[in-house]
Amino acid sequence: MARFLKNRNGLQGKAPGTLVHIGRQKIDKIHIRQISFNREEIQEHQFNDIDSVPEPDPNRVNWINIDGLHDVESLERLRSRFNISSLTMEDILNTDQRPRIYEESGHIVVIMKSFYRNEEEEAYRSEQISFVLGAHHLISFQERIGDHFDPVRDRIRSRFGRIRERNDDYLLFSLMDCLIDSYLSIIEKIGERVEMLEDKILEKHDQSVLKEIYAYRNELRLFWKNIRPIREVVGFLSKATSPLIKEETRIYLMDLEDLATQATEAIDLYYSMVSDQLNIYHTNLSNRVNDVMKVLTIFASIFIPLTLIAGIYGTNFDYIPELKWHWGYFMMLGVMVAVVVVMLIYFKRKRWF
Amino acid sequence: MARFLKNRNGLQGKAPGTLVHIGRQKIDKIHIRQISFNREEIQEHQFNDIDSVPEPDPNRVNWINIDGLHDVESLERLRSRFNISSLTMEDILNTDQRPRIYEESGHIVVIMKSFYRNEEEEAYRSEQISFVLGAHHLISFQERIGDHFDPVRDRIRSRFGRIRERNDDYLLFSLMDCLIDSYLSIIEKIGERVEMLEDKILEKHDQSVLKEIYAYRNELRLFWKNIRPIREVVGFLSKATSPLIKEETRIYLMDLEDLATQATEAIDLYYSMVSDQLNIYHTNLSNRVNDVMKVLTIFASIFIPLTLIAGIYGTNFDYIPELKWHWGYFMMLGVMVAVVVVMLIYFKRKRWF
Amino acid sequence: MARFLKNRNGLQGKAPGTLVHIGRQKIDKIHIRQISFNREEIQEHQFNDIDSVPEPDPNRVNWINIDGLHDVESLERLRSRFNISSLTMEDILNTDQRPRIYEESGHIVVIMKSFYRNEEEEAYRSEQISFVLGAHHLISFQERIGDHFDPVRDRIRSRFGRIRERNDDYLLFSLMDCLIDSYLSIIEKIGERVEMLEDKILEKHDQSVLKEIYAYRNELRLFWKNIRPIREVVGFLSKATSPLIKEETRIYLMDLEDLATQATEAIDLYYSMVSDQLNIYHTNLSNRVNDVMKVLTIFASIFIPLTLIAGIYGTNFDYIPELKWHWGYFMMLGVMVAVVVVMLIYFKRKRWF
Amino acid sequence: MARFLKNRNGLQGKAPGTLVHIGRQKIDKIHIRQISFNREEIQEHQFNDIDSVPEPDPNRVNWINIDGLHDVESLERLRSRFNISSLTMEDILNTDQRPRIYEESGHIVVIMKSFYRNEEEEAYRSEQISFVLGAHHLISFQERIGDHFDPVRDRIRSRFGRIRERNDDYLLFSLMDCLIDSYLSIIEKIGERVEMLEDKILEKHDQSVLKEIYAYRNELRLFWKNIRPIREVVGFLSKATSPLIKEETRIYLMDLEDLATQATEAIDLYYSMVSDQLNIYHTNLSNRVNDVMKVLTIFASIFIPLTLIAGIYGTNFDYIPELKWHWGYFMMLGVMVAVVVVMLIYFKRKRWF
Amino acid sequence: MARFLKNRNGLQGKAPGTLVHIGRQKIDKIHIRQISFNREEIQEHQFNDIDSVPEPDPNRVNWINIDGLHDVESLERLRSRFNISSLTMEDILNTDQRPRIYEESGHIVVIMKSFYRNEEEEAYRSEQISFVLGAHHLISFQERIGDHFDPVRDRIRSRFGRIRERNDDYLLFSLMDCLIDSYLSIIEKIGERVEMLEDKILEKHDQSVLKEIYAYRNELRLFWKNIRPIREVVGFLSKATSPLIKEETRIYLMDLEDLATQATEAIDLYYSMVSDQLNIYHTNLSNRVNDVMKVLTIFASIFIPLTLIAGIYGTNFDYIPELKWHWGYFMMLGVMVAVVVVMLIYFKRKRWF
Repeated sequence: MARFLKNRNGLQGKAPGTLVHIGRQKIDKIHIRQISFNREEIQEHQFNDIDSVPEPDPNRVNWINIDGLHDVESLERLRSRFNISSLTMEDILNTDQRPRIYEESGHIVVIMKSFYRNEEEEAYRSEQISFVLGAHHLISFQERIGDHFDPVRDRIRSRFGRIRERNDDYLLFSLMDCLIDSYLSIIEKIGERVEMLEDKILEKHDQSVLKEIYAYRNELRLFWKNIRPIREVVGFLSKATSPLIKEETRIYLMDLEDLATQATEAIDLYYSMVSDQLNIYHTNLSNRVNDVMKVLTIFASIFIPLTLIAGIYGTNFDYIPELKWHWGYFMMLGVMVAVVVVMLIYFKRKRWF
Repeated sequence: MARFLKNRNGLQGKAPGTLVHIGRQKIDKIHIRQISFNREEIQEHQFNDIDSVPEPDPNRVNWINIDGLHDVESLERLRSRFNISSLTMEDILNTDQRPRIYEESGHIVVIMKSFYRNEEEEAYRSEQISFVLGAHHLISFQERIGDHFDPVRDRIRSRFGRIRERNDDYLLFSLMDCLIDSYLSIIEKIGERVEMLEDKILEKHDQSVLKEIYAYRNELRLFWKNIRPIREVVGFLSKATSPLIKEETRIYLMDLEDLATQATEAIDLYYSMVSDQLNIYHTNLSNRVNDVMKVLTIFASIFIPLTLIAGIYGTNFDYIPELKWHWGYFMMLGVMVAVVVVMLIYFKRKRWF
Repeated sequence: MARFLKNRNGLQGKAPGTLVHIGRQKIDKIHIRQISFNREEIQEHQFNDIDSVPEPDPNRVNWINIDGLHDVESLERLRSRFNISSLTMEDILNTDQRPRIYEESGHIVVIMKSFYRNEEEEAYRSEQISFVLGAHHLISFQERIGDHFDPVRDRIRSRFGRIRERNDDYLLFSLMDCLIDSYLSIIEKIGERVEMLEDKILEKHDQSVLKEIYAYRNELRLFWKNIRPIREVVGFLSKATSPLIKEETRIYLMDLEDLATQATEAIDLYYSMVSDQLNIYHTNLSNRVNDVMKVLTIFASIFIPLTLIAGIYGTNFDYIPELKWHWGYFMMLGVMVAVVVVMLIYFKRKRWF
Repeated sequence: MARFLKNRNGLQGKAPGTLVHIGRQKIDKIHIRQISFNREEIQEHQFNDIDSVPEPDPNRVNWINIDGLHDVESLERLRSRFNISSLTMEDILNTDQRPRIYEESGHIVVIMKSFYRNEEEEAYRSEQISFVLGAHHLISFQERIGDHFDPVRDRIRSRFGRIRERNDDYLLFSLMDCLIDSYLSIIEKIGERVEMLEDKILEKHDQSVLKEIYAYRNELRLFWKNIRPIREVVGFLSKATSPLIKEETRIYLMDLEDLATQATEAIDLYYSMVSDQLNIYHTNLSNRVNDVMKVLTIFASIFIPLTLIAGIYGTNFDYIPELKWHWGYFMMLGVMVAVVVVMLIYFKRKRWF
Repeated sequence: MARFLKNRNGLQGKAPGTLVHIGRQKIDKIHIRQISFNREEIQEHQFNDIDSVPEPDPNRVNWINIDGLHDVESLERLRSRFNISSLTMEDILNTDQRPRIYEESGHIVVIMKSFYRNEEEEAYRSEQISFVLGAHHLISFQERIGDHFDPVRDRIRSRFGRIRERNDDYLLFSLMDCLIDSYLSIIEKIGERVEMLEDKILEKHDQSVLKEIYAYRNELRLFWKNIRPIREVVGFLSKATSPLIKEETRIYLMDLEDLATQATEAIDLYYSMVSDQLNIYHTNLSNRVNDVMKVLTIFASIFIPLTLIAGIYGTNFDYIPELKWHWGYFMMLGVMVAVVVVMLIYFKRKRWF
């Protein structure tokens, strides 16, 4: 399967607006977690059926988290109940969306990605996380039962902290902050591996290093594709004129925009670092070829002339005066030593060793 | 023929506005398909003659699809009947246009490309698809009898779905959506081949890989040239103030704009991936040269000195004391083994194997 | 002479506004062709003297074409007669201008380039073409007696076609269209040669290919320098608020803008294609080095050990038991064959052939 | 630890707005230096306890410098006393911020970096410097006890100079100017080392040069990441409409913007210079491989044929007529010399030496 | 000394606004040339003392040219007399400024560079030229006694030409035009050398070519750094709303802007040409390595097997039947010739020669 595009066979020929889940089914059943809270109270529920979800209470922050996107029918019921447009629902189900944001029919829709490591393929894969922010509710959609948002859940439960005193928009900010923080962690992890590669580059010179370089570049490309648009998404949110975003949340969103910029810049820096490493590796390889060549040349240039000398005195001519000389053999050896010395001086002068 | 420009010999020296078909004639006769429908009714007709096409009914969506652009005369009659400007008609006939959009004399004109695989040349080729949207009709022009739009036809016939309830502008959106979906399919296909190349890169090292890399780059360049401007085209449409575009269609167009962005980004990513592969291939090649050199150097450095030793005792000097020793021969063999051992230790130390 | 800048020795130290012809004199005498026409009538004249040119008739389109820019004195008289500013005249004479456009003292001034092949230098050279559009006249300036505009002349003479019914601004558009069409032809020509190079790249590996690549890059650079600003020039014209540009001409100019964009994009694509070819060529070369090395290594690694064996039995030791064996010689040959077989298996395993 | 991102373990899962120090603790205790002055008077104090800091006098410029960011509790007291928002405080404590600027609740907050050389790692490291400008005070935060600002302190003490006559905003400018000046010094220092590398490039060809190139690139990347945003920061400040920035300070800020641009451009230039050096180094290496190859080829091509000749006359055939000739041996030597001469002429013609 | 930054030791720690000369002292004494003229009259004076300069006559154009910037005290007196701000003066003295322009306290300040060849270092160096345009005077500052402006002086003296009829702003334009013309000359000169390099690239292959390429790149970088901002400078001037710039001068300034653009583009083109040359050089080098390798391989592959054959018949086995054959020796020679023929055909087939 192409890594940067998901298989769209299910979609082609379908009318826009038809609900089809694009992506691999990652869990068996749909799984719904609802938390509704205000400063004083907090209620948590879990459901496997959309219809059991109670009506959101307008005096509370209502967060409905859906894990699993394959049950199109249930999601259709959710859609009509919360008055989400079918185009929005289609965007949520098609997990091959670019990160983006838009307002439609009284909702703010945010589409983002999270990353998890697929150990089988030894590569990161992206999962789509979508948020639909309404007047009194925030619905989040995930492909798998995720624990990304557990820190936020803990903060809600803990009763302290700002989150219990704010509205749905602040909750949306908190969840996005959670995701962007996880981006930075992943980038940091890959960054560490890239920096460790640095030492190998000059030592080892086999295909494993090449494979590693190539793998890092593709991972960084995957992150780049899915993280770069986040800056725009957050920027849009912080400048949105929608009444859904309270004025006091804006300052947090501006901070988040900066964090997204930092993530993008870090990806760029590590990407260019890996490019450098490939160059350095290649240049170092040429260095080694040069060294090998020099060893060969020194050996060959010294011994081939000597072999010739020996060969000459191995000929069977009737009349070779030197052969008769008593010390002829030792003179030959002497000449050979002289040749070696001359050659060594020659290569020394060329600074070959 | 230059791949990124079509032969313009037919055009040079002609006045702008003269109708000339630029491009290869791809079918024999012009072929007209008309579908006119509303929520209740649907009528389909096929013609080979422009004049037989009935007047569009203002209470229906009228879609006239023209296959074949070489019959300039028929198209001229069509032009004057539907009040299309001659400059627009010229743009439709000149199949070497960049994708673009403009409003003129009451029409919105959209020029796009579709791609088909030319099996002879083993390469993708582009075909120009043009749309002229009027108040009560949408005319589409293709170079060949195409089946790109069959999914849309099926949806129209099926009676269900949004398309029967909407206007000509929604039909235009559906057709464009159809084309952009086909772009993503093609990019996915080439993307898969690019990713499969990854494994070959480190294994094989002959010209076939180079040819493949080069071919992919040129195909991606062709797509880039013809797909990148689509984003602007769709963006213009979604922001157009023309009364031809209904307000409720805009949200679909914005979605389409995003799809076009995704296509462009995927092309960019695969292009940079192929560049990487060329680099990796080259570096791996240097690796192999290095390996070959080492084998040669080890062999030559070990055997050339031994040959010299044998050569020395093959000389015919009268007085070579060693030759007289009873175990001389075996001593020589012993010295040779010692030399081999020393050399192997030397190369081992250099970590050459 | 530097290829991307013309020699400015004539200019340095001169006051701005002094008329000096910068560039090589390309023809002997100034040559003036005047065509004035309206829908009913057409008059053509040729002159060698500025003063003989009759006064432009305000009821006609008056096109005065000047070939040759070295006769500064005549041009000065023209300048004052048509009320052209001296700075404009200076720009026309200095043939090293970038393509550009501006309005000044009631004129629109357009400076463009045409290209011709200098067969001596086996390279393209640029020639400056300038247009001065006034209320009732269009003056065009060329360095040489050019035939670029013959197609336009033929259209004017033919009585049919739009050109006879329109004004000077449409004539200006027609001439610019003529030039941009010629750009596309030239780019197509070089594009074809670039694409033909593709096959040579993997076959041949001598300097001629390198020279060709280098030459194409420089030609594409020359085109890029002179064609890229055209888009802005045409864009300025299509958006100009000057009364000299009629509303009905704008749609043609927008078309022209697109053509200019297409030319620029084609240059970019061919440029990147040539870059690719250089890379592929280099990588292919490394492939060949690798192949040559393998042949050498296989030969050397097989024959050097055999030579050693023969050398050993060529020594003159008194006591070498094998020499006395009756089948000793054939046993040695057998050992040699065995060594060859072992080595071939070794290299086969390494997949060297 | 990843070089371009700091370890965020302390942060993950924490609510935004929770004060956590991100970064290594660099000093033991918090250290506070206060200077308050006007044209006539100046007072300096040092404290280890936030609460001892006296109330800022509105008729003076009050500069409070905090060294050490790990004592979160003290900083929290400072925060509430000076009415700094907790989000701002968080930005100050998280030392992995990008350089940036914003206005919030009556303060202008500026976050910048300074660089110091970590001799252990033989690399530059960045330290975060933050400024909070209020109506009558400027608070600066550093991770370590820094001497960056000593020149400014000296100028304040000296009684002369503009600084004593101006307000807090001019003090902020002075401190930022101090930092940007230090950037230019560091870039100059690394620039000198880069330029010195130039000579080594063509002489030496071992890994040490590669390591040096690689190290410079990473250092320049670190500077680029932390210095490039400064231009925007200063630009924002010079265009700010806040009453905290006096009109007469703007002209100084514009000057500073230019200095920041200069720093960024210098980094870019040195970066591209190092890239060049890597290319030149690689190309030079190929030159050397070529030279080594030629020596080998000349030696082998001359001596191997000679060895063959000697070998032929070393065969033991019964009937080899040449062996019987009296001068046969000398004729053989003559032939050998002839072969050498012919080969030398051949290589001379190829211009191999 | 770092080439792209000047040593700032004199500045660090100084208050902004302190007058310090940054740069090397290039002449002994300050040297003042004053020309004041109108259409009728002209007066020229030279001084070594600022105080001797007479008051500018408001009915004339007053041009004061200062050569030498090290005499800070004199310049301070000039500053206060002409009411120039101390920040401006600081910019003039710090000769490491980027080219820029600003209005301040009734003056327009322009900072540009000129280039001169330092024959010792065999490289171009930049010199800072500053202009301060006031209501009735233009003051220009140079580091050395320069002759850049002699052509303008000649034009003023000559009484003819526009310059005598215009104001200080036109004089400023003339001086800037003079400088930009000199840029184009220098770029043309280096351009010619770059184009001459083209032929060497394919012929020579030693370090001298590499050094030349590297030197050109650094020179082009120096020009790029100092010339690119000029376009903005001139653009600012041509759009300035200041009363110091007369309407009739604007058209000249727009022309100048174009000239600056042309200079920048020429630098870019030559820079990319040099990059190309480095690539071509490297690729050509690989070509040569390949050729050398082939010669070696052909020689070795032909002669090593022959040597083996001779070696076999040089062995001293008791029973080698071939040795007894009368024509054995000649048969061996025949086999050798056959081997040579076979090998040559083999290499011919591989198209190695």
